[in-house]
Amino acid sequence: MKARVEKIFQHLEKPVDAIVVANSVDPHLDQSFFYLFGVPAGLFEGAVAIAHPDGKLDVLTSPLEAETAHQAAKLDPHVAIHTVPREETDGFVKDLLGGAKTVGLNFRELTHSWYLILEKAVPGTDWVDVSVPIRNARVTKDAHEIELLRGAAEIGSKVGREIPGMLKTGMTELELAAEMEYRMNRHGASGRSFATIVAFGAHGAEPHFSPTSTKLKPGDSMVCDFGATYQRYVCDITRSFHFGPRDEEMKAVHDTVEKAQAAAFATIRPGVPAKEVHAAAAKVIDESKWKGRLTHGVGHSIGLVVHDGWGYGPNVADPLVEGMAITVEPGIYIPGKGGVRIEDDIVVTKNGYEFLTTAPRAYIEVAA
Amino acid sequence: MKARVEKIFQHLEKPVDAIVVANSVDPHLDQSFFYLFGVPAGLFEGAVAIAHPDGKLDVLTSPLEAETAHQAAKLDPHVAIHTVPREETDGFVKDLLGGAKTVGLNFRELTHSWYLILEKAVPGTDWVDVSVPIRNARVTKDAHEIELLRGAAEIGSKVGREIPGMLKTGMTELELAAEMEYRMNRHGASGRSFATIVAFGAHGAEPHFSPTSTKLKPGDSMVCDFGATYQRYVCDITRSFHFGPRDEEMKAVHDTVEKAQAAAFATIRPGVPAKEVHAAAAKVIDESKWKGRLTHGVGHSIGLVVHDGWGYGPNVADPLVEGMAITVEPGIYIPGKGGVRIEDDIVVTKNGYEFLTTAPRAYIEVAA
Repeated sequence: MKARVEKIFQHLEKPVDAIVVANSVDPHLDQSFFYLFGVPAGLFEGAVAIAHPDGKLDVLTSPLEAETAHQAAKLDPHVAIHTVPREETDGFVKDLLGGAKTVGLNFRELTHSWYLILEKAVPGTDWVDVSVPIRNARVTKDAHEIELLRGAAEIGSKVGREIPGMLKTGMTELELAAEMEYRMNRHGASGRSFATIVAFGAHGAEPHFSPTSTKLKPGDSMVCDFGATYQRYVCDITRSFHFGPRDEEMKAVHDTVEKAQAAAFATIRPGVPAKEVHAAAAKVIDESKWKGRLTHGVGHSIGLVVHDGWGYGPNVADPLVEGMAITVEPGIYIPGKGGVRIEDDIVVTKNGYEFLTTAPRAYIEVAA
Repeated sequence: MKARVEKIFQHLEKPVDAIVVANSVDPHLDQSFFYLFGVPAGLFEGAVAIAHPDGKLDVLTSPLEAETAHQAAKLDPHVAIHTVPREETDGFVKDLLGGAKTVGLNFRELTHSWYLILEKAVPGTDWVDVSVPIRNARVTKDAHEIELLRGAAEIGSKVGREIPGMLKTGMTELELAAEMEYRMNRHGASGRSFATIVAFGAHGAEPHFSPTSTKLKPGDSMVCDFGATYQRYVCDITRSFHFGPRDEEMKAVHDTVEKAQAAAFATIRPGVPAKEVHAAAAKVIDESKWKGRLTHGVGHSIGLVVHDGWGYGPNVADPLVEGMAITVEPGIYIPGKGGVRIEDDIVVTKNGYEFLTTAPRAYIEVAA
């Protein structure tokens, strides 16, 4: 996509003659390939994209996915597709670089093997790391990306609203996770965007818990952290519920996390240092009886992946920028007892922010 | 795991003093980390494993997953866990290498960024690519790995047996894929091992088709290619069905693919050049009226990932080895009409092979 190629070149500190983005074998794919080439389906293992300063994009693909590539390129006159046997890719890259002296690479998503192949194929080239400019271009979203993020968030939000109706005494964490993922797919997701977290009772005190065969019992609180992938873009949403007779402490914890999240939302607008968003949430928690129980940064950017290259915690002075899509996810974790986290996805707008996720954030108690 | 560390060192062509395996951010994780350190859950972003010739393994993990790491290490006295803040990992690697002069790295799964961090952190080291020895160690499975592959294959096989009961006129490819993935998770999978392929009618002619909202109609054949992940190990299974009134051509195609697969199975034992397995299947297809319609290699190894580092096609002379877990998946693809592929997972044994997947391979026609 011409505008995205140009955006990356605009973010460079020093000019380069071209940028090469190279996929290895799954899972070692560079999502920047899909940022530059908006092909909706396909793995594109071994494929390479070469971006030029004039906005043109050469895409080298194996015969296996050439048809899919040509279909996508029909919508984008700045893309040229080259169908290349895998073992001849390096030679084609050399020809298409046409004597470029300085070439940018995404060191953070390129395998070291690929680097050595390129170094050998095009000797004398000055290879420059452009992973920071690529990340900075990707971190603010264009209108089409926001549309896809909204599509993913709507799927996640639907499932968020449906979770209370799924809960039954005796169901396992794994069963609830399976049901949530099924619903996301039925609502149009191509899959989950990360391994679903379902944590019943005391398990909720571990922020990154993996679901087990532990059964739900009356009196359990729970943390459900999940996300859908929709046309390669993701959402990331967390809701915490209570099952059965009220637990006054967990209700008070939930109220506090809600207030912390609201305080974080209130700070969000372009130009605000990211750490101020974190600090606003942390202040609410640290002034409550759960001081120190927020054990992680309050959010991260999302896009083609769930951790899209930018996180914000207590020490991140970089300012929020219009078009950033980020999570806002304070939590309180009480070892031996449980946890509450509330996570929403928002986009930073000119004057503030807009929600991507829409499921209710208020405390929900489900009858056992 | 001591035996796996030693196995990799035994596969080296030239000795090294240590081997470093380093994870970046998801999805840029080196599955060799999980081969060496049998931790059942967790992402371990940014984590590093250092393997020593005596079988010892140092694991550097962030505080986020330290508890999970310690639990796993309790079962393995050769593993030492070091909880390290992410930004200090490079310094710890230097200390734990303790003056090693020659250090092996998995160039194929290491990001170039990580390579540069290591090069800077431990200057004067001779960094050697050990990705081929690592692949060769991983490609033959130990008893515990075969147990986990069998667990994954049993889940996939159950769903393979259930697909006929799921088919209904008007359901979409995406709905069937969602149902299949849900069933895998309900049967104990932690997720799918790759994006499920469901291809109705003419879509079946494209081997790597992504499911769409196309609806099932009487008279459609279909290709369903899917896999479960179970305790990090995968299966990969394909079944082809026919829905509604018999299509004599598709039945004959299925019969031919069954024969091709049986011919391939009959060749499998240690020492046989891989290309002979492919050739046996290709011969059956090329002697039928669908000559030339097998458009891909007949299999690949499976393990911690679906394409586990080794594929076999018409030109692969390397011999099969006892303990290899591979797919056998001939297919016939007829543009405009449809396709049939039958794929099973097997382990090469001392005298032949054993099936991992157990769903019936015979032609199944489902009433519309």
